[in-house]
Amino acid sequence: MSYQSGRHFLQIPGPSPVPERLVRAMSKAVIDHRGPEFGELGRNVLAGIKRIFQTESPVVIYPASGTGAWEAALVNTLSPGDKVLMCETGQFATLWHELATRLELEVEFLPGDWRHGASPEAIAERLSRDSDHQIQAVCVVHNETSTGVTSRIADIRRAIDGTGHPALFMVDTISGLASAEYKHDEWGVDVTVSGSQKGLMLPPGISFNALSDKALARHQQARLPKSYWDWSSMLASNATGYFPYTPATNLLYGLKEAIAMLEEEGLDNVFARHQRHAEATRRAVQAWGLEVLCLNPEEYSPVLTTVLLPEGQDADALRKVILARFDMSLGAGLGKLKGRVFRIGHLGDINDLTLLGTLAGVEMGLTCAGVPHSPGGVHAAMRFLADH
Amino acid sequence: MSYQSGRHFLQIPGPSPVPERLVRAMSKAVIDHRGPEFGELGRNVLAGIKRIFQTESPVVIYPASGTGAWEAALVNTLSPGDKVLMCETGQFATLWHELATRLELEVEFLPGDWRHGASPEAIAERLSRDSDHQIQAVCVVHNETSTGVTSRIADIRRAIDGTGHPALFMVDTISGLASAEYKHDEWGVDVTVSGSQKGLMLPPGISFNALSDKALARHQQARLPKSYWDWSSMLASNATGYFPYTPATNLLYGLKEAIAMLEEEGLDNVFARHQRHAEATRRAVQAWGLEVLCLNPEEYSPVLTTVLLPEGQDADALRKVILARFDMSLGAGLGKLKGRVFRIGHLGDINDLTLLGTLAGVEMGLTCAGVPHSPGGVHAAMRFLADH
Amino acid sequence: MSYQSGRHFLQIPGPSPVPERLVRAMSKAVIDHRGPEFGELGRNVLAGIKRIFQTESPVVIYPASGTGAWEAALVNTLSPGDKVLMCETGQFATLWHELATRLELEVEFLPGDWRHGASPEAIAERLSRDSDHQIQAVCVVHNETSTGVTSRIADIRRAIDGTGHPALFMVDTISGLASAEYKHDEWGVDVTVSGSQKGLMLPPGISFNALSDKALARHQQARLPKSYWDWSSMLASNATGYFPYTPATNLLYGLKEAIAMLEEEGLDNVFARHQRHAEATRRAVQAWGLEVLCLNPEEYSPVLTTVLLPEGQDADALRKVILARFDMSLGAGLGKLKGRVFRIGHLGDINDLTLLGTLAGVEMGLTCAGVPHSPGGVHAAMRFLADH
Amino acid sequence: MSYQSGRHFLQIPGPSPVPERLVRAMSKAVIDHRGPEFGELGRNVLAGIKRIFQTESPVVIYPASGTGAWEAALVNTLSPGDKVLMCETGQFATLWHELATRLELEVEFLPGDWRHGASPEAIAERLSRDSDHQIQAVCVVHNETSTGVTSRIADIRRAIDGTGHPALFMVDTISGLASAEYKHDEWGVDVTVSGSQKGLMLPPGISFNALSDKALARHQQARLPKSYWDWSSMLASNATGYFPYTPATNLLYGLKEAIAMLEEEGLDNVFARHQRHAEATRRAVQAWGLEVLCLNPEEYSPVLTTVLLPEGQDADALRKVILARFDMSLGAGLGKLKGRVFRIGHLGDINDLTLLGTLAGVEMGLTCAGVPHSPGGVHAAMRFLADH
Repeated sequence: MSYQSGRHFLQIPGPSPVPERLVRAMSKAVIDHRGPEFGELGRNVLAGIKRIFQTESPVVIYPASGTGAWEAALVNTLSPGDKVLMCETGQFATLWHELATRLELEVEFLPGDWRHGASPEAIAERLSRDSDHQIQAVCVVHNETSTGVTSRIADIRRAIDGTGHPALFMVDTISGLASAEYKHDEWGVDVTVSGSQKGLMLPPGISFNALSDKALARHQQARLPKSYWDWSSMLASNATGYFPYTPATNLLYGLKEAIAMLEEEGLDNVFARHQRHAEATRRAVQAWGLEVLCLNPEEYSPVLTTVLLPEGQDADALRKVILARFDMSLGAGLGKLKGRVFRIGHLGDINDLTLLGTLAGVEMGLTCAGVPHSPGGVHAAMRFLADH
Repeated sequence: MSYQSGRHFLQIPGPSPVPERLVRAMSKAVIDHRGPEFGELGRNVLAGIKRIFQTESPVVIYPASGTGAWEAALVNTLSPGDKVLMCETGQFATLWHELATRLELEVEFLPGDWRHGASPEAIAERLSRDSDHQIQAVCVVHNETSTGVTSRIADIRRAIDGTGHPALFMVDTISGLASAEYKHDEWGVDVTVSGSQKGLMLPPGISFNALSDKALARHQQARLPKSYWDWSSMLASNATGYFPYTPATNLLYGLKEAIAMLEEEGLDNVFARHQRHAEATRRAVQAWGLEVLCLNPEEYSPVLTTVLLPEGQDADALRKVILARFDMSLGAGLGKLKGRVFRIGHLGDINDLTLLGTLAGVEMGLTCAGVPHSPGGVHAAMRFLADH
Repeated sequence: MSYQSGRHFLQIPGPSPVPERLVRAMSKAVIDHRGPEFGELGRNVLAGIKRIFQTESPVVIYPASGTGAWEAALVNTLSPGDKVLMCETGQFATLWHELATRLELEVEFLPGDWRHGASPEAIAERLSRDSDHQIQAVCVVHNETSTGVTSRIADIRRAIDGTGHPALFMVDTISGLASAEYKHDEWGVDVTVSGSQKGLMLPPGISFNALSDKALARHQQARLPKSYWDWSSMLASNATGYFPYTPATNLLYGLKEAIAMLEEEGLDNVFARHQRHAEATRRAVQAWGLEVLCLNPEEYSPVLTTVLLPEGQDADALRKVILARFDMSLGAGLGKLKGRVFRIGHLGDINDLTLLGTLAGVEMGLTCAGVPHSPGGVHAAMRFLADH
Repeated sequence: MSYQSGRHFLQIPGPSPVPERLVRAMSKAVIDHRGPEFGELGRNVLAGIKRIFQTESPVVIYPASGTGAWEAALVNTLSPGDKVLMCETGQFATLWHELATRLELEVEFLPGDWRHGASPEAIAERLSRDSDHQIQAVCVVHNETSTGVTSRIADIRRAIDGTGHPALFMVDTISGLASAEYKHDEWGVDVTVSGSQKGLMLPPGISFNALSDKALARHQQARLPKSYWDWSSMLASNATGYFPYTPATNLLYGLKEAIAMLEEEGLDNVFARHQRHAEATRRAVQAWGLEVLCLNPEEYSPVLTTVLLPEGQDADALRKVILARFDMSLGAGLGKLKGRVFRIGHLGDINDLTLLGTLAGVEMGLTCAGVPHSPGGVHAAMRFLADH
């Protein structure tokens, strides 16, 4: 292939671009995962990742992508035929639902319109009808990567508590961690699932389960077969900084450095930065006269913005033009949104000028692809960013 | 920690040192795993890895370490309560056995002395007694990383065939692939399990299942719950070069390059090189007056050599001295061999002078740790290498 | 220092950002510069760099920055006290003039206003008055990095030829090579001086002299003392691909790759790309109601654009705001332009979206710093880029 | 070219292998060499390099290889026709002599046999005959890279002082710095010349002049033409951490890290390590029954060992065999030693096992090339290293 000048704009909602500093960290020579130097590394990342989840409980690190951590959350806490309540917030909630079904769980899927987060009220209503506590777990996606809508985790916790129902509360924040504010302990989540290739700015390849005491207690009775995902053997080895099988050592080098970078910037600053970029993006969308998919401003994602095209416009054709003309990748519409939306990732190692280059690529792409719009999106974003 | 001059000698039997060329390949920017550029990469590695396994059948690539691929082999082909025949060749066979047990399979473990490969005769004898074909699978470790003993896979295939038993034949060559000769199709293996961090010279993080038609047919009936490991969804996505969930893209960059390197050198040359280094190592061990753990010369591993210390000597103390004094990591004795053996890895990106540096480190270590031995091991290895 | 999210925008007119592919190429292990592998590398880059200069004559490669190649051009062709005609096009022409003076040459400096290229007419006029051919060389800067003005090299050659004067014609295209069209042979240049850190996209550290037969003939008589810069010993060693003293091997790895990248894209495409980005930039400047320093459209630089601020505005204060707020480096006003202009580099490994991010940073910076301007610069650039 | 397994053994006396940590440091993005971040870097390395030279006086850093720093030392302190006393210690002394001659200095070359360092007595004798102080400088190579012989710099200083002669004392320790003990101030050297690609473990491309007050005073009167090498403009810019022209920024990143690594290990430990490896190497040479070129044990180089082959043996044929069979580069015999010696580099980022791999490669090479020798060199080196 011929060389194309300049850096590709990877503005999908993950994997996000890996900063050089992490590339360098991961390029270090692999070490003996049973030697003393590894133990130091292991203890470092196992402690550090807890600070990122804002939890005092253990966080399990898998050499696997986020889908594996979804599976891990379920097989470690549930038994064959268990009832699980999931919430249809979008494509990833749907995939988690399918995965649970394949694991022979009995899953009830609270319907949603893909434009709102999971409803605390609907969850509470359903749980209150479950008087004999058949439902073993409530599973919610925090930051729906397919829609750019977040669910209000603290509110859902309160709603569950209001019913007095003992179900576990499991949350997927694969694309939210280290970009959107997330407080595993304070929000009372039992299992949080996440991955490396989003706010942590690493390549894909490791993923996480953050636990709670309640989840660990439930783990003792869970009878779904498991070995690779088994928390028990993980926690036993983790106690000294090691892993029960070969870990993805080089990604752990990266994780150590990623945590350092996030803490140098300050987690609160990281969250504020993402909010600011998300707002700038929405102002651009509004100026173009296009529609943000998310309908509830309280649920806007700080990680990505999904843009709904007018009826009759083909979002995939638009993305293709933008890739060919401006060397930028945007997220496709997934599942039932295919062709109707595109998704702008504004997460991870990004700054104002990269965001504006991104928005400029979208605005020019709309022109080149003949999508009706008002110009001025970039201008609106610039005004916001210059003022804030 | 203060800086220690020179390159660490990582002479464990995997992870093996990652050559610079692979480090560079993996440092490329992550790309959209749903974009067109990824499809090309996917098709490239999915085709190339088949050549390494010497198979025409599909090879599934997991973002997971080898332990995950062990689990995948079982959950894709078996149902709860199925009988499986495994062979106690060493610690990794034992761990695979434990894993199968945890998955609620009924595992029979043919006993072994950890100094021989799996016995074709014993397997045949057992299968011939299984007249109603309760045993669904025979599982053998090709290159036992804990002992440095290989099992004779082609012979075992013939032995199984001799009984007319329809069990699947599953082989773990996690530490053998791309170092020891291996012919998935010719040897009639149904599922081969392998990983990235040994002969492929990559960091840990991806692993493999090579399949057969028979394995795929059995997969249709297999009822162990699965999702992450499910071959069906993998093969459906792989058809166009993609994956059903986020792959470990940067390791795939490395895999593409690793395959190119192996093919530039020529697989047969790679195998011959490993045999030559293994022979040089054994000559050194012999000259020291120490014992190679493997008792059958036909089963010597080309990947690693396990050295048995005389009664009363502590192999872990020796390894500690060698690490502290000569900055070299050797493999520990695992399981029931703990403290009694050490393991010298001579696999992957290695050459004569690195091997001799390694053997020199062992020889000096024996002196420093006060292990009785004759000098002259390095000398014997040099003589062999200079002549061959 | 705390971590700052995102990639710094290095939009000075060199060093330009080094693309990852070159970083990787340069990270290869250093080799014996007297061994056979080096010879291949040397022959490769010595042949390739000639294609970049568009010459059949030798190109000398120095382990030195561009300033060294300036000195080399002079000491290899001139003798103490020789008369040289230079043209005041800006700060770099002034520095070359100072350098020549320090080497005890007698330099006449044709005055200029820093807003035009060197005047072919003025040069011709001066040479025609030099009836006894005292002037040994005419030295011109092709792409004045301090002003964003190019000189018309082919026209100057014709002007010199029109006078029949035998002076050597030496050209500095340190910041022009591989960004602005340049034809060493066709344009009849005797010595062209260039460097690595601009259009070649490498870090600083190697620089070049492209020669002509006439320059080589003059070299035989040149009596300025020289050793490091001596063409003779260079050319003797270069004949077999080697260098008379230790070369900057890793930069040569990078040079080999840079040439490959430029040729993959196609030199003509590279030049057209720079012209397109320069035009987009000027449209932005115009929309802001600011002034491009260069007054002659035929002499606009495709490499950088220098923007003149209105009287009373401090360009350095503006640059400081932009660096602090938007993490972008712009070029300062140099010499007599200090504080009055800023320079936007748009050379090397750049694409449309990076340019628009750059222009957005400038536009927001103008707002933040309170520099009077009309908004709409980015918009104008986008319109141009979307249409062309 | 086909892939060759394993890491090349680059055991020439420089460039020495670049440790990964330095490769990573140098891979950082280039920055604006006129911006604030650069100033910090500049001040850091300008201060740090003084500690490596063990001087309180300034050290000038050139973007050039060591040959440039040779030239710089002369042109900054001398005037056309000045008399200089140099000492024929080997090929590099001869090259420096040639360089000085080309710069139109009048050089007297004290003869030597290439097997001893410069003679303090001979220098004193010559200076004492120079009663009208025509000789402006005495130039000595500290660590002769072509012979593996060091000169006793402190003794030579005392010898010069004994004569009361005011000549400057200039020393080349290009291949000695940061490997062999060197004390610029304590030893009373006026100008020390060095480079990056030896004990500093960096790629070639930057070089140094360490100064003294006396050298700076002499600089005021020196009339050799100079600009690139001019100390005055360097020191003026260095005062704030900047450089008068574009520096080799990425090598400065590396230099910062190299200084950190040397100081983490401790300079005295670094020197002791080199001495220990040199002694092990000499024991191997002795065991082989071959001759170390250096005849005076007080002058053995800790950096490299030059081995003299018996009459009739071709050292270049031997090196060729070793390169082809064992993928190791050794230093060739230079100048009048061509074909008669080979040189083993044992400097920089090296450890015991790499050294023993190196010596094993030599010992096997002697066998393969049919050079008469006793075996046992590696054995002797191992014994020494295990005991010390």
